[in-house]
Amino acid sequence: MSEEARGASRADTKLHYLDNNATTRPAPEVVEAMMPFFTEKWGNASSMYEFGGQVHRDMEEARAKVAALLKCDPGEIVFTSCGSESDNQAIFGTVEALGPSTVVITTKVEHPAVIQPCKALEERGHRVIWVGVHGDGTLDEAQYAAALATPGPKLVTMMWANNETGVLFPIAECARLAKAAGAVFHTDATQAVGKVAGVDMAATPADMLSFSGHKIHAPKGIGVLFIRRGTPVRPFLLGGHQEKSRRAGTENVPYIVGLGKACELAAAELRDGTLDRIAALRDRLEAGLLRIPETVVNGNREMRLANTLNISFPYIEGEAMLFHLADAGICASSGSACTSGSLDPSHVLKAMDVPFTSLHGSLRFSLSRYSTDADVDAVLEAMPGIVRTLRDLSPFGR
Amino acid sequence: MSEEARGASRADTKLHYLDNNATTRPAPEVVEAMMPFFTEKWGNASSMYEFGGQVHRDMEEARAKVAALLKCDPGEIVFTSCGSESDNQAIFGTVEALGPSTVVITTKVEHPAVIQPCKALEERGHRVIWVGVHGDGTLDEAQYAAALATPGPKLVTMMWANNETGVLFPIAECARLAKAAGAVFHTDATQAVGKVAGVDMAATPADMLSFSGHKIHAPKGIGVLFIRRGTPVRPFLLGGHQEKSRRAGTENVPYIVGLGKACELAAAELRDGTLDRIAALRDRLEAGLLRIPETVVNGNREMRLANTLNISFPYIEGEAMLFHLADAGICASSGSACTSGSLDPSHVLKAMDVPFTSLHGSLRFSLSRYSTDADVDAVLEAMPGIVRTLRDLSPFGR
Repeated sequence: MSEEARGASRADTKLHYLDNNATTRPAPEVVEAMMPFFTEKWGNASSMYEFGGQVHRDMEEARAKVAALLKCDPGEIVFTSCGSESDNQAIFGTVEALGPSTVVITTKVEHPAVIQPCKALEERGHRVIWVGVHGDGTLDEAQYAAALATPGPKLVTMMWANNETGVLFPIAECARLAKAAGAVFHTDATQAVGKVAGVDMAATPADMLSFSGHKIHAPKGIGVLFIRRGTPVRPFLLGGHQEKSRRAGTENVPYIVGLGKACELAAAELRDGTLDRIAALRDRLEAGLLRIPETVVNGNREMRLANTLNISFPYIEGEAMLFHLADAGICASSGSACTSGSLDPSHVLKAMDVPFTSLHGSLRFSLSRYSTDADVDAVLEAMPGIVRTLRDLSPFGR
Repeated sequence: MSEEARGASRADTKLHYLDNNATTRPAPEVVEAMMPFFTEKWGNASSMYEFGGQVHRDMEEARAKVAALLKCDPGEIVFTSCGSESDNQAIFGTVEALGPSTVVITTKVEHPAVIQPCKALEERGHRVIWVGVHGDGTLDEAQYAAALATPGPKLVTMMWANNETGVLFPIAECARLAKAAGAVFHTDATQAVGKVAGVDMAATPADMLSFSGHKIHAPKGIGVLFIRRGTPVRPFLLGGHQEKSRRAGTENVPYIVGLGKACELAAAELRDGTLDRIAALRDRLEAGLLRIPETVVNGNREMRLANTLNISFPYIEGEAMLFHLADAGICASSGSACTSGSLDPSHVLKAMDVPFTSLHGSLRFSLSRYSTDADVDAVLEAMPGIVRTLRDLSPFGR
């Protein structure tokens, strides 16, 4: 099927967007909050005059909203350009501060924005310990404890919620263990912020936390690094004095203001039952898809984000299913969107020892506040036929 | 004067914005071009399905517009989050590729986004050669030639136009000399792109060029690094495969599209006489201010951006003048906005050996396509009185 054919067919179909772990629709409230900063209040927040000063105050209001969601001090929030930059700063900046003998402890199922910096450190001679996971994607806590017993300066970098499976790591407990072992603790919470009530920096002794605006209905191009006061971490992007000399570069005020609004909306949602509604939709989707023969859910179904379903249809290709789903106006993913363009099987599912026949036949559906029963119905209607068609073509002959 | 007082007084006054080297107003055409990417076309450009694919094509169209302005191949354009990030990538990425014996050649008048990475390299043991400037801010070409004679792998990083004085370096010639000496050549062209017709990568053998969207009427939070094919430079921000694995992080599509539009507008302006109109306004401002006794222009008045005037009023403080100008609704700068918040005198003027009495009394006025005769009139009306008042208070008693 050509790109044109897919485009034409989509135009006739309502869009069913179920790829919210890749990116989310900017909330209308967020867009509205940003607009004045493109048209009237476009001053430089670091200027001396009032035209910049007002903008500076609006930026600090947004910082307070982000801090309220994370339950930390606004002075501990550093705005960056994306979750990947936050991860790079946390990892490279800490290793630079702790020195060349730093041991890095991470897991085999991290996002590429953590894996690639860790691999780069390995190439430069640092020891990196890659902690594994169990078959259901949960952390191998014995391996983690053993890694923490390594002597010398240590940085732990560990995700809060897995982007592909939604499986949660017990970050509060992992952070406590790390602090007891004298390690600096960073968590990539890109998929957890706004989706997990326990993301609470007052209750979790993490030193650093990364997240990205565009996973919680702010635009793509804004991220946050929470840095607890006193954490040994050097700036990554060097230059001007912005963000109290923790991140150079003229502040992206519209997106900072938009992110503040997005955090305010997310904080409200953590209280108002939205997550329960999303979980109910996801569970109905999961139950419906499990009726298709030989289908298996990847990842622990309890320790999991409310919005995520990773499911394998053995003997067929994820990419082929995606193309057929697109014909029905359905957007989903066959892995991390960040690694799209490559057809390598998911490193997350490989680390979980998912069998080969399932590895290539996995799909991820991820919901948001804007997901509806109609979206779930569309998948449940399309999927059985897609699986039948593709299995008829499969070289495995099932 | 309190912040509130300045705010109140500004509300009664038309804003005369003459600080365009700090940041510019987003062009209405740019805002209009971005809007659909917040409201309808918010898909992830790296996705497999058409909802992302269309966005990807829009992003590539924008890349072609940026390339047209720079006269390079679209495949040589990497989108970053700001000019500072582009500079960091060019410098750290090249030194990583060339190895630990790399000598870095730069100048004493660079932007902090170049100075700070160079200082960090110095701290790590790299040799950095800081080429000086003449009293008029032009490059000391003999010092530059001597630096290029250093044996071994070399990176030159040198700005095209100075952000504080507007003084131009002869980048085409400097790049040719660098290539002849086997050095990699990077230029921070943040103040030159869209303002200097000679920024032309077909005619200039630079390997890399940085610039920032918000200096040419795109929003704050988008930058470019031109990387000529074959240049030895490692990625700086590691993670996903975006930007052909040259810059990780989900693409900021709205700003990329906005920057494409801004480059299209800038390219048109380089042809339509706008720069002449801006230069005429600037020259009228300069001539008017020079009527104030003892006033001196900082920087070569020929080899200079059309939009920039850096001028000293000896014996008084720049910051004090700015506060009074703000009362008249005038936004200007007493140095690089990026170093605002600090009261250190300008490193650029210090490198030019500007005398102490002038160093602290300098102001920068920088114009744009939106500047008007009324803006110039406002400054010429306000400034003589401000200087008189402040000199009466000056401990120098002039």
